[in-house]
Amino acid sequence: MGRVTERRRITRVDDGRLVERPDALAVEEPLEIRLDGQPLSVTMRTPGHDLDLALGFLVTEGVVRSPEDVAGAINCADNVVDVTLRDGAPEVSVSRNFYTTSSCGMCGKASIDAVRTTSAYDVSADRVAVDRSVLVTLPDKLRAAQRGFDRTGGLHAAGLFDAQGNLLCLREDVGRHNAVDKVIGWAVQEGTLPLTANILQVSGRASFELVQKAVMAGIPVLAAVSAPSSLAVDLAEETGLTLVGFLRGASFNVYAGAQRLTGH
Amino acid sequence: MGRVTERRRITRVDDGRLVERPDALAVEEPLEIRLDGQPLSVTMRTPGHDLDLALGFLVTEGVVRSPEDVAGAINCADNVVDVTLRDGAPEVSVSRNFYTTSSCGMCGKASIDAVRTTSAYDVSADRVAVDRSVLVTLPDKLRAAQRGFDRTGGLHAAGLFDAQGNLLCLREDVGRHNAVDKVIGWAVQEGTLPLTANILQVSGRASFELVQKAVMAGIPVLAAVSAPSSLAVDLAEETGLTLVGFLRGASFNVYAGAQRLTGH
Repeated sequence: MGRVTERRRITRVDDGRLVERPDALAVEEPLEIRLDGQPLSVTMRTPGHDLDLALGFLVTEGVVRSPEDVAGAINCADNVVDVTLRDGAPEVSVSRNFYTTSSCGMCGKASIDAVRTTSAYDVSADRVAVDRSVLVTLPDKLRAAQRGFDRTGGLHAAGLFDAQGNLLCLREDVGRHNAVDKVIGWAVQEGTLPLTANILQVSGRASFELVQKAVMAGIPVLAAVSAPSSLAVDLAEETGLTLVGFLRGASFNVYAGAQRLTGH
Repeated sequence: MGRVTERRRITRVDDGRLVERPDALAVEEPLEIRLDGQPLSVTMRTPGHDLDLALGFLVTEGVVRSPEDVAGAINCADNVVDVTLRDGAPEVSVSRNFYTTSSCGMCGKASIDAVRTTSAYDVSADRVAVDRSVLVTLPDKLRAAQRGFDRTGGLHAAGLFDAQGNLLCLREDVGRHNAVDKVIGWAVQEGTLPLTANILQVSGRASFELVQKAVMAGIPVLAAVSAPSSLAVDLAEETGLTLVGFLRGASFNVYAGAQRLTGH
């Protein structure tokens, strides 16, 4: 388990008065993810749950099509995780995967199409209903379970809940996409993908990539404390994901998939 | 000039009452950046100031060593910018592929070595002093000039100020790294790099990559409204950049380079 926070001496300036004091910082360090020994990607992340992060990243980026293709994952050096594929797993073309994303001349529509074809799971089926009274409890539960934020103010959180509002897994990271990858990687290790009966609650905004990651893991409901982007809403509508934003207190906005929310 | 916000119909839930109403969303769309016609990177960004974004990206990522190497930049298609290098400009290696999402400008780099770029400029020289009474005015000035945020709650801002606290350039984006690249790209077009007498104020947190982008543009002072990460502080100390965080009201924390801050 890596260090999540780190103490430093800082100068605090308060209405013109200067005080030297210690302060807790969210730790950010690069993690190199390798696939069968080949460098694939570097992500700036908060140490801890690195295997979850690597596995979640490979699944949500579509590098690995199925969790069954993974033979194992190890911390082969400081800040390096190597994921080994099973013999007989479909060959993945690393350069194709990332260059495809980088080189297609895409409008929002084209990239949405690309995501729909790469996701192994369909999140549009109505296998789960979430009571609105359950939904409004999730941010407080997430916050209560967040240990790093209160000390640093610099960590995002992602939490996986069941439809009854029980917290199954919480992860924190300086990068919100990493927090989500860690949660999904945890589920990969638990063997519970696709997460068709679950809700993903995130502490910040909902970008295109967070909706994409949810869809890649089969999660049908994504709730954010803050604003979604236009493309996040487009992708939610395209895929049938329920997207909730500005979930604060007893209020929230539903941007897509309102049919899954029930009750009063 | 692209659309910064977009209107959608949403369902607002307020204490159990449901209302259908329009809502403004921050626009997020992919931008493909090409170099001499070759696809280099796709970044999820808010449309507008795309040439600034492309030029700033190329400089802060170290792809282009000097603004003088750039012959021109054009919007060659919807959501595509092509940057042309001057004849005789040093050859650049575009083998690093970048797929940058709206929350992380680092993803897609294949190795830890690729993360660290080398700046052509030295920000450690004490060419600028900033009065603390000027510093505390910057967040309000940034916020007052931010047009998109109030409507969406989903846009980051970056502002370039002089040492007297005058706002020179403000840019907004769903990605904070894009907002910074747009500001630096503006300066590239103005021919004012390195920005050795300026302060960069950002609306959110200060990550490693934001410090790195500031250093790549020769900016000696970076001030953030929220928390820095451990690696942001490390890089600031190493390069001699002044790093301020939690700049709110009359208070702030100085994490590195306190010698540049003067006054009461």
